Amino acid sequence: MGKDVRESILEAAAPLIHNRGFNNTGLKEILDAANVPKGSFYFYFKSKEAFGIALVDHIARTLRQEALAFCEANPLPPLERLRRFMEDRRNRRVQAGFVGGCPIGNLALEMSDLSSAMRERLRTALSGVSAFYASALREAQERGELRPDLDPEATAAFMLDAYEGALLRMKVEKSVEPLDRCQDYLFNKLLA
Amino acid sequence: MGKDVRESILEAAAPLIHNRGFNNTGLKEILDAANVPKGSFYFYFKSKEAFGIALVDHIARTLRQEALAFCEANPLPPLERLRRFMEDRRNRRVQAGFVGGCPIGNLALEMSDLSSAMRERLRTALSGVSAFYASALREAQERGELRPDLDPEATAAFMLDAYEGALLRMKVEKSVEPLDRCQDYLFNKLLA
Repeated sequence: MGKDVRESILEAAAPLIHNRGFNNTGLKEILDAANVPKGSFYFYFKSKEAFGIALVDHIARTLRQEALAFCEANPLPPLERLRRFMEDRRNRRVQAGFVGGCPIGNLALEMSDLSSAMRERLRTALSGVSAFYASALREAQERGELRPDLDPEATAAFMLDAYEGALLRMKVEKSVEPLDRCQDYLFNKLLA
Repeated sequence: MGKDVRESILEAAAPLIHNRGFNNTGLKEILDAANVPKGSFYFYFKSKEAFGIALVDHIARTLRQEALAFCEANPLPPLERLRRFMEDRRNRRVQAGFVGGCPIGNLALEMSDLSSAMRERLRTALSGVSAFYASALREAQERGELRPDLDPEATAAFMLDAYEGALLRMKVEKSVEPLDRCQDYLFNKLLA
């Protein structure tokens, strides 16, 4: 029971903070959205920072589950699978009207200098996405489908960073162009 | 005189907001840092949003002046000039201990969905940096020093976005590695 309420607070908070920022979202808004009485927040989280750490883990867990589900549902050659996965994410951004962007990237820019504990969790979350990309690139290289001079880990990290930057530009331009350009440069001009 | 006070508020605010975020920095902190009496803020700016717009313009103007000064001081072939410019920025991040990152990129992620007026100015600021990169790439292409299949404008935009993403990762990892990796991938693996 306690665990369910904690989870429902995180689930209600995630979209609010995604759209409005961590410091810009008050505890009252979060608890109202979760239908939880005001006084109970500190029963579940010992501070807003502890809540922030749990939130990063919650978002990272959700992203990981979505990525694994995508891979299971799309048994494709590794590079094509990665390309389609990024296209799938792209289509969600279009549906969302280019609002929000990457919840991990947003928290990374906002909170890295303000909370070293949140920063550590954000670092782990981004490393997890990098590792997911890298495993596809390694598999592609073993199959001879990727330039042999590209290190899978470094390339994966570069791709993820480039995509985070494209999401930033998407938020500013309210256009899909930065995402499509990023996808084109990564897959057709760098990896090919 | 009025203009000087307004400018000194922006100058005092820029590093505060760079390190702590826009919504997370109060008017009192800004006015204390600028040594300006509390009541006078609304004499110079009609709202915090109007102040935010002026701040984006102030940061963009400073960046533009620094970029032009760098070009004047470094009469080099275009690609080498761009590479050295990015290295110069990299060295500043190392000196700053990987704190802060890109002041425009930070505001872009934080404010694009919260203020369409600030978003418009942030879009203009980023387009200005893109255009600065693009002019170097165009010149390089005319000299036969850049892959002829790369469009200078799109390539410049991709490079800037990739760099913004690398700065995000730098803030999370507190390491220069994402910047060096980005520089390596852009100049040695994409443009070459």
